[in-house]
Amino acid sequence: MDRDQLRQLMEAVRSGELHPEEAVERLRALPFEDLGFAKVDHHRALRRGFPETVLAEGKTPEQVARILRSLSERSELVIATRAAQEHFAAARAEIPTAEYHEQARIIRIGPIPEPPSDRSPVAVVTAGTSDIPVAEEAAVVAELAACPVERIWDVGVAGIHRLLEHREQLTRAGAIVVVAGMEGALASVVGGLVDVPVIAVPTSVGYGAAFEGLAALLGMLNSCASGVVVVNIDNGFGAGRFAAMICRRTSAAE
Amino acid sequence: MDRDQLRQLMEAVRSGELHPEEAVERLRALPFEDLGFAKVDHHRALRRGFPETVLAEGKTPEQVARILRSLSERSELVIATRAAQEHFAAARAEIPTAEYHEQARIIRIGPIPEPPSDRSPVAVVTAGTSDIPVAEEAAVVAELAACPVERIWDVGVAGIHRLLEHREQLTRAGAIVVVAGMEGALASVVGGLVDVPVIAVPTSVGYGAAFEGLAALLGMLNSCASGVVVVNIDNGFGAGRFAAMICRRTSAAE
Amino acid sequence: MDRDQLRQLMEAVRSGELHPEEAVERLRALPFEDLGFAKVDHHRALRRGFPETVLAEGKTPEQVARILRSLSERSELVIATRAAQEHFAAARAEIPTAEYHEQARIIRIGPIPEPPSDRSPVAVVTAGTSDIPVAEEAAVVAELAACPVERIWDVGVAGIHRLLEHREQLTRAGAIVVVAGMEGALASVVGGLVDVPVIAVPTSVGYGAAFEGLAALLGMLNSCASGVVVVNIDNGFGAGRFAAMICRRTSAAE
Amino acid sequence: MDRDQLRQLMEAVRSGELHPEEAVERLRALPFEDLGFAKVDHHRALRRGFPETVLAEGKTPEQVARILRSLSERSELVIATRAAQEHFAAARAEIPTAEYHEQARIIRIGPIPEPPSDRSPVAVVTAGTSDIPVAEEAAVVAELAACPVERIWDVGVAGIHRLLEHREQLTRAGAIVVVAGMEGALASVVGGLVDVPVIAVPTSVGYGAAFEGLAALLGMLNSCASGVVVVNIDNGFGAGRFAAMICRRTSAAE
Amino acid sequence: MDRDQLRQLMEAVRSGELHPEEAVERLRALPFEDLGFAKVDHHRALRRGFPETVLAEGKTPEQVARILRSLSERSELVIATRAAQEHFAAARAEIPTAEYHEQARIIRIGPIPEPPSDRSPVAVVTAGTSDIPVAEEAAVVAELAACPVERIWDVGVAGIHRLLEHREQLTRAGAIVVVAGMEGALASVVGGLVDVPVIAVPTSVGYGAAFEGLAALLGMLNSCASGVVVVNIDNGFGAGRFAAMICRRTSAAE
Amino acid sequence: MDRDQLRQLMEAVRSGELHPEEAVERLRALPFEDLGFAKVDHHRALRRGFPETVLAEGKTPEQVARILRSLSERSELVIATRAAQEHFAAARAEIPTAEYHEQARIIRIGPIPEPPSDRSPVAVVTAGTSDIPVAEEAAVVAELAACPVERIWDVGVAGIHRLLEHREQLTRAGAIVVVAGMEGALASVVGGLVDVPVIAVPTSVGYGAAFEGLAALLGMLNSCASGVVVVNIDNGFGAGRFAAMICRRTSAAE
Amino acid sequence: MDRDQLRQLMEAVRSGELHPEEAVERLRALPFEDLGFAKVDHHRALRRGFPETVLAEGKTPEQVARILRSLSERSELVIATRAAQEHFAAARAEIPTAEYHEQARIIRIGPIPEPPSDRSPVAVVTAGTSDIPVAEEAAVVAELAACPVERIWDVGVAGIHRLLEHREQLTRAGAIVVVAGMEGALASVVGGLVDVPVIAVPTSVGYGAAFEGLAALLGMLNSCASGVVVVNIDNGFGAGRFAAMICRRTSAAE
Amino acid sequence: MDRDQLRQLMEAVRSGELHPEEAVERLRALPFEDLGFAKVDHHRALRRGFPETVLAEGKTPEQVARILRSLSERSELVIATRAAQEHFAAARAEIPTAEYHEQARIIRIGPIPEPPSDRSPVAVVTAGTSDIPVAEEAAVVAELAACPVERIWDVGVAGIHRLLEHREQLTRAGAIVVVAGMEGALASVVGGLVDVPVIAVPTSVGYGAAFEGLAALLGMLNSCASGVVVVNIDNGFGAGRFAAMICRRTSAAE
Repeated sequence: MDRDQLRQLMEAVRSGELHPEEAVERLRALPFEDLGFAKVDHHRALRRGFPETVLAEGKTPEQVARILRSLSERSELVIATRAAQEHFAAARAEIPTAEYHEQARIIRIGPIPEPPSDRSPVAVVTAGTSDIPVAEEAAVVAELAACPVERIWDVGVAGIHRLLEHREQLTRAGAIVVVAGMEGALASVVGGLVDVPVIAVPTSVGYGAAFEGLAALLGMLNSCASGVVVVNIDNGFGAGRFAAMICRRTSAAE
Repeated sequence: MDRDQLRQLMEAVRSGELHPEEAVERLRALPFEDLGFAKVDHHRALRRGFPETVLAEGKTPEQVARILRSLSERSELVIATRAAQEHFAAARAEIPTAEYHEQARIIRIGPIPEPPSDRSPVAVVTAGTSDIPVAEEAAVVAELAACPVERIWDVGVAGIHRLLEHREQLTRAGAIVVVAGMEGALASVVGGLVDVPVIAVPTSVGYGAAFEGLAALLGMLNSCASGVVVVNIDNGFGAGRFAAMICRRTSAAE
Repeated sequence: MDRDQLRQLMEAVRSGELHPEEAVERLRALPFEDLGFAKVDHHRALRRGFPETVLAEGKTPEQVARILRSLSERSELVIATRAAQEHFAAARAEIPTAEYHEQARIIRIGPIPEPPSDRSPVAVVTAGTSDIPVAEEAAVVAELAACPVERIWDVGVAGIHRLLEHREQLTRAGAIVVVAGMEGALASVVGGLVDVPVIAVPTSVGYGAAFEGLAALLGMLNSCASGVVVVNIDNGFGAGRFAAMICRRTSAAE
Repeated sequence: MDRDQLRQLMEAVRSGELHPEEAVERLRALPFEDLGFAKVDHHRALRRGFPETVLAEGKTPEQVARILRSLSERSELVIATRAAQEHFAAARAEIPTAEYHEQARIIRIGPIPEPPSDRSPVAVVTAGTSDIPVAEEAAVVAELAACPVERIWDVGVAGIHRLLEHREQLTRAGAIVVVAGMEGALASVVGGLVDVPVIAVPTSVGYGAAFEGLAALLGMLNSCASGVVVVNIDNGFGAGRFAAMICRRTSAAE
Repeated sequence: MDRDQLRQLMEAVRSGELHPEEAVERLRALPFEDLGFAKVDHHRALRRGFPETVLAEGKTPEQVARILRSLSERSELVIATRAAQEHFAAARAEIPTAEYHEQARIIRIGPIPEPPSDRSPVAVVTAGTSDIPVAEEAAVVAELAACPVERIWDVGVAGIHRLLEHREQLTRAGAIVVVAGMEGALASVVGGLVDVPVIAVPTSVGYGAAFEGLAALLGMLNSCASGVVVVNIDNGFGAGRFAAMICRRTSAAE
Repeated sequence: MDRDQLRQLMEAVRSGELHPEEAVERLRALPFEDLGFAKVDHHRALRRGFPETVLAEGKTPEQVARILRSLSERSELVIATRAAQEHFAAARAEIPTAEYHEQARIIRIGPIPEPPSDRSPVAVVTAGTSDIPVAEEAAVVAELAACPVERIWDVGVAGIHRLLEHREQLTRAGAIVVVAGMEGALASVVGGLVDVPVIAVPTSVGYGAAFEGLAALLGMLNSCASGVVVVNIDNGFGAGRFAAMICRRTSAAE
Repeated sequence: MDRDQLRQLMEAVRSGELHPEEAVERLRALPFEDLGFAKVDHHRALRRGFPETVLAEGKTPEQVARILRSLSERSELVIATRAAQEHFAAARAEIPTAEYHEQARIIRIGPIPEPPSDRSPVAVVTAGTSDIPVAEEAAVVAELAACPVERIWDVGVAGIHRLLEHREQLTRAGAIVVVAGMEGALASVVGGLVDVPVIAVPTSVGYGAAFEGLAALLGMLNSCASGVVVVNIDNGFGAGRFAAMICRRTSAAE
Repeated sequence: MDRDQLRQLMEAVRSGELHPEEAVERLRALPFEDLGFAKVDHHRALRRGFPETVLAEGKTPEQVARILRSLSERSELVIATRAAQEHFAAARAEIPTAEYHEQARIIRIGPIPEPPSDRSPVAVVTAGTSDIPVAEEAAVVAELAACPVERIWDVGVAGIHRLLEHREQLTRAGAIVVVAGMEGALASVVGGLVDVPVIAVPTSVGYGAAFEGLAALLGMLNSCASGVVVVNIDNGFGAGRFAAMICRRTSAAE
């Protein structure tokens, strides 16, 4: 149940179509239903302005499929993240309309929403080619939150002129997601270049003393540019979600 | 030179008071002047929508005072962060109007700006009493960026009912800064409670396996709530700065 | 040989059925017998109020099966933990009455004991669905120590209202096992909510800066709630065992 | 307000001395009062069966003194932990009855409660002489929770016969707190020796690869004995508190 | 060329059978011959009182076989450690007399030497069953250095009485190798029990906060017993080698 | 009471001077006496072939002085290690014969024993000048165990020819203690040079990525030379003690 | 486009063959072309004196092949590093002249350049046989930068005389790449032996406390010899590249 | 004795002034003389093309002064690094010509050499003002090795345009030392900008997750630009020394 559905319910109460007691009951009934292994929280879209999201990793394909079906019966748009091909196959078997964003590893059930025309875009930037899967997760998540997205791939600081060519594009963004492994220096450079909030995503790209993303994480946390915040290693979802929260606020439609 | 001063300059050009060539020269002259030990960047207020900030820590009182004087000759509002009493004494000797936010450890030269009436507030929340200095830094920084601030102290998760009483207040905020040491769980709880962007600041409060803030940092990075981003340990400045960037965007005045 | 069997032996001595010297010999004979690769300690049930437990991980299926058979010849209830399907297959071939708690990865030989009616229950709580296998290990282990168990799955702090609904149930428990990965904040929240001893189990659920459970471990060690203790990452066995030790003490039957 | 005071209040309601509405108001008024810098939670003694505890470390002497006075006006027994001599001096100036447990670094206001005669004791054990301050904190805290305490100092595993002499004493305890630095092996040995819950406290005693208590912490978390749980490095308070929670449950008086 | 062969050569010089110049040439020729990918050092047996040892891990089966053949043409006893079944198969194909100590993962070419009758034994002790492969490596290596070995398996500190039964046997040893994972406490207990040099080998046995042997390593380095030294995690070879160096010195035959 | 005193006691029993019962009583009385804060173990010299050693660090000067006096009343030679000037002053006030090895930070009460003439020396080697205090601790400890000591200072691998000049001297040693900070490479080089057991002591000398001795510790644990074992960072005592255990075994006098 | 091609272009401008405007356009056109997933930077050979290098690891074989083809159409020499057999197969299918340096895991398209006769060689040295793959990567990379290379394999410090035999050869080098795992001591010894810049490459060779190359990395960073710098673990490419930059500067031809 | 003095000695031999045997004796006498606590190596200037350097840190002022005097009696230029004011005072008392480079913390005895005119400069670059002391150490060390030095302070990536203004200056350098704390991103940006060898020095500037320079160290080791090597945290000496080794090779005078 999203904000629109809630408004309709309230209107129904106001117009007398629905008795207040009944409305209360309906709301009380919603919070979660028990599938035995997981509480499914149907209120969340309402609370967070975003469809319910299932973390597929660490769950069996069958568990994911059952949770998705339960959620999709009540919501127009539900997704599963960090989903492997097996998760998608099981989901498809249960819900034929399920779609798979392969690079982003996201299963989606329901249409991608149309962004309002006055919403400023989320820019998603990667240092290298290997960072793209994480960046795609961020980009798709922002699109699912009805934000326009601009993808700028492979502009790492070893060739700073490639980044500088995108300066204007970055300046226009409502929020920038910077995805980088190795030393993660791109976040500092972007943060120093433009006056836009930067959400930095360290990736596990690299080897040796990259320590599975630790070097990039520490680098980004210590960024000398002040408008930079950080999420967990490889957490494209969190970054895209947060960037969308910012851009939605800049929009009159919200 | 802040945005307003720049607009005046442009108006002067338009009205014919200032020759374009002269305007260009004036702008070109600004970027930085060389004090021998530090490039002072007068353009930054323009680029980042925020007064120039000097990191006092690691500099001598004399260095800080000289940089502040140089900056204050051209800007209406300049600050020094992580400033000790000695830094303030040296600054006061050079610039009599310098003020000191003691808990926040900020030296300020110039007036605190008045926030526009339609700007949503930054809520700053602490888990315990010992987290207040870092939280004050965040709060003062947000105020200096012309955002209203609401302070909510000592509502850590060991007494969750104290936090729940502030739920409504948190929901109205444009951004929330959560400041917590030890295990840093407050960020997850706040992030799960309201649909507002949360900037989490781990603090070095704690002992033993708190490892100077590492436990809180890791906890916040792994937050199970999705609207949470993280800054460096004890980095109240960065969090307040980022929260202000968000709240300014939600305001028509910007 | 458990406490009851020992009491019978002592009674036999007192009644004259058994000569003291013979009793001593029988006791001396018990401690352990040598299987070549492992000392099997038959006294342990006596010493620790719990059946002998074999750690299957790191042993071959054949080793596990042989140790279990040796133990089961003298004890009514023996178990193997962290046992894979292969371990169970080998055990089943040697001891047809062997059973397998699949999610908990425990092989059991002998009946689950009936808890005394006045024993307060162990509550086992998980933050997410992926934490259930570790939680099941704790739950089964507590049941094998004759404690009633209440399972509360998927009540992580990102949706705090789901946890609050279980507050009364938690208050009635004799001990609470909290199983959580990622940032492990659930332990602090539960510890702050009720006046019951909390045994926290960090899990290796998560990715990136979760560092295989380190983030949850540090978070739990630094819990701001004071009735919280911690066991090793993924150590459901230890937590269930310790919770049972507490609950057994609260029971008149002990 | 502790449990006894609450019962009196309820009796007053039952007897008609107090109007129910007034009782509700009095209870609602209690939870916390705002001192500006810290929420003081008067309900906590009720919720947790233990006097309100102030963590002095990280607070100024004046803050500690003011919080203690506020608390002591409503409760019979309040304490401050990790209190330095300066904290005590400030507290003494405000509250002349304040006492100082110097080794344990605890300020106490109010009398030490008398333990019920049937309560089993908490045994507190140290590996070496340098571990005593942390152990004293645990011991005093358990005494403040009305548990009898037995102190066993300096029985580290380098001279195992010294520990073995205390075996009987350990077996009689309701819970054992083991305090050890360096490699922390004492926890495993005690845990393997007796069938009593062991709360292990790693200390920062040691040097070099002891890494400020990390070696002892890891050692205790990996204890091969199963009835062992762990608290934060140097956290005597938490261990004493938890041990008391167990022992109070074994007592009919509770 | 071992010490005996060298003495024969010197005798030949003394008796006039061999011209000094020729002896020098023969010695100079020996040091190493170039196989293209590895310098094979035939002098090492002489220098270190031990046969040349090839580390098989990280080399292809073919490389190992070729190095072993080259060495075995000049020495009576050569070995390869950390050798997999594939390494052994390749070695067997080249040198039909090659033997495989499977648990110890050692390929041996040449006979196990007979220890002198007055040489005190090396005791090899494990905490658990899973530590046996590392312990076997230490034991076989000591046997190859002509030391008698006594194996004492599965006497971890969770059942301290099992260890105490071996006290006499441990006291008679010339050196003790203690092999333990998890918290590694066994080294401290053995070191405190007997006045014999202890070489501690941490193993990667354990899970979670055992961190692949790090917990045991730190524990052993911080041993409160003073006659304890440590080698690398899982380094049975180094421990057996060092123990043999000590025992050989106690023997008149050396 | 050391080995000689014990033999005299046994002789007295054999000759009839002492009744067996009385001898038993005297022995039973010895193990430890309770000073309130520390068990003093008078048997240890007997058990470990070395005088009782008090770790002064972490104890007050008064505690150290009292323990030393108690021990010195029954033993001919007792020491305190890691003793500061304050500890020595307190000890001197109690026991006028106390002496202070300043660089080694050892307080000694009783004469340095004369080494038997056939005992091979302990060589103590340092990489740099800053490593000398730790090396002196090792050297003095070995001398107190009646071993001759050869000091070789400042022969780090940055000037390998300085080390090579001492090759012969090293070859004659019964055991070598190598003391080095920074990268600790000296242990590997010495271990590869001579066929003598090497005990490596990492020191906290260095800065930055030396991480207080961690770099040297890891380097020494991974030594490519096989006769190398390691003790804790800055643990000169343990290394000297272990080296003496080896050298005493090579001596007929033992 | 390398330096020679650029000179020809400039000559063409000077001689009138090419109009300046056209030259500018050609240069501007070059920087990078967009393949959709990666910006290919054709200017880099010019900027860095080295052919464009593709990091194959983390890219699909198809991506690598497409980037290589695009690059090879404009440059005479392009390479892919950390390339698996699959990458080579895909590259070969697209570009039949592709060659594979198997041990170095480098795909090369174009001829190896002939070094100028006066260029001093890069010496590449390994501690053991297992370090050779990383060393080969460094060696091939230096050869591709037109430097003569001398390979010195398996001269680790456990047999220091093997290294000393190469002293003269090392002294003649323009730069030395030292490749070593385990404790990495070889870098310090080589750095102390000769007056030539040493680039140290830690490798992930080793086990246990080698921590995947961390021990060698820390050892090398703390080298007591002052002419030593360090690159990432297993980064043969970076070391070979840097050594070539030095040697090219010593050559008149540059 | 530096190279010039050695040439004079050889000339004296050639001209008959000095008998070869005497020359040999004089050379043999030189290598080091024993001061009791440190071998002073007079040959080092000869071997390494640089004056003997004493690391003052960790030595007493008196030790430093004595070593400096001994060295200065035979060499024209000797220095002490990481020297505090106390070290300088002691040195000045012994050697009146001693000078102190305060920011660089270097004591110098002897004149700064004049660089040859054709030697390309070492550029030393800092990210911030707080990095200057480490940078000064590098700069002074390079000057002492007769290299011209260009200092570029405070050009961190948060204001990338300040760095870009120095591009040409950087391109002309023979080697670049980049000194940066926090995230250390400057090294990657400089390395990507110009085709000159970059020696990166991480500094301990920063706080929180900077972890005393670890973040910068890891960032620099993982630099995505390939011509970048790294030295220890705060090791300005090593970087300046290495940069000078490169620049001296590019000079005909060497």
